[in-house]
Amino acid sequence: MTPVDSTAVADLLGVLAYAELTAFDRLAEDARLAPTLHGRAALAKMAAAEIGHHVRLTERLAELGVDPAAAMAPFVPALDTFHESTRPKTWLEGLVKAYVGDGLASDFYREIASFLPEPDRALVLEVLADTGHADFAVREVRAAIAADRTVGGRLALWGRRLVGEAMTQSQAVIAEHDRLAELIMTGTGDIAGVGRLIERITTAHTERMATLGLRG
Amino acid sequence: MTPVDSTAVADLLGVLAYAELTAFDRLAEDARLAPTLHGRAALAKMAAAEIGHHVRLTERLAELGVDPAAAMAPFVPALDTFHESTRPKTWLEGLVKAYVGDGLASDFYREIASFLPEPDRALVLEVLADTGHADFAVREVRAAIAADRTVGGRLALWGRRLVGEAMTQSQAVIAEHDRLAELIMTGTGDIAGVGRLIERITTAHTERMATLGLRG
Repeated sequence: MTPVDSTAVADLLGVLAYAELTAFDRLAEDARLAPTLHGRAALAKMAAAEIGHHVRLTERLAELGVDPAAAMAPFVPALDTFHESTRPKTWLEGLVKAYVGDGLASDFYREIASFLPEPDRALVLEVLADTGHADFAVREVRAAIAADRTVGGRLALWGRRLVGEAMTQSQAVIAEHDRLAELIMTGTGDIAGVGRLIERITTAHTERMATLGLRG
Repeated sequence: MTPVDSTAVADLLGVLAYAELTAFDRLAEDARLAPTLHGRAALAKMAAAEIGHHVRLTERLAELGVDPAAAMAPFVPALDTFHESTRPKTWLEGLVKAYVGDGLASDFYREIASFLPEPDRALVLEVLADTGHADFAVREVRAAIAADRTVGGRLALWGRRLVGEAMTQSQAVIAEHDRLAELIMTGTGDIAGVGRLIERITTAHTERMATLGLRG
């Protein structure tokens, strides 16, 4: 395997650290849309877990001699734009975004992580591990669709919008970060490899939509 | 010591559990006002710590056979009203609220906790322990006042407003919860004891304002 540029590692840890910080923000905000105190506390707990991940990543960056704020800064605009343009208006939209959007992002970061040397590969896979959000979201969304069939159609549209925005923003991120682009090209081998990577991510996305009871 | 009504224990754990959940919300919201990614992450970490406390309290309620949501519910209106009426408009207002407001609330809960039997007394004292917020807030606020003298006057006014609202809401809570009122009366001994309790809390508040460099 070609040795990985250490700045590419810092890039990936930086984007992930900021992604965890925004995940915290978003879960905390969505928690307020919860119809029950139980749901609100459940989301707040997941938000707290994301901060635990954020701390792990920033500690590793510091260990590598990289200022965490500097490593995160280049990714702030793209991630903020994504979240601003996909702000959930309801509790269910928030859950679909968390499950479908985070699932998509996690798959993408996991693919890149597989090109990293240890210990960073293990660290990234660890912080991407599900914090219990998936099961919770699936349960709530399926129950809501079972109770009212019209909910499914609206949420399916919402899911498609999320994917569109995610694609736009991730392309922008990669285009602006040569080292990340290079890491993906080197890791996958060639353009056909990139195509297979995208196919794997798309397939997993369709499966997640189906799990929620939504057409992708 | 007169045995404590077990419903009074549930009341105190319930109000605290909801207070921790709102503290999480508020810190998460204030984090977004942070001028730096470092400050934002610092507040997010404190928010995560509050959720840890919330979990401890709800676990104890469940152990006592009390539904956590039911124990929290009676206190939702008063705490929400307090936070709605004292929503910080700036990063510094948020820090002063966290330091001065949470300090006041913690002192009050700590006084009541001293009337509780174990293990609840220890649990309450543990979840009231500072999560590093105090030092952080003091440092940031003092630096801001040092940089711009006019900041101090505005924040002192804000601090006085916080106390006024806190007093109004805590009186409302106690008035509506006979068992809490009784717990305080029994614990302090008599009206003079209640007076001394209020005096201790007021003195500590004035000291906190002075620590921030503000006139109480």
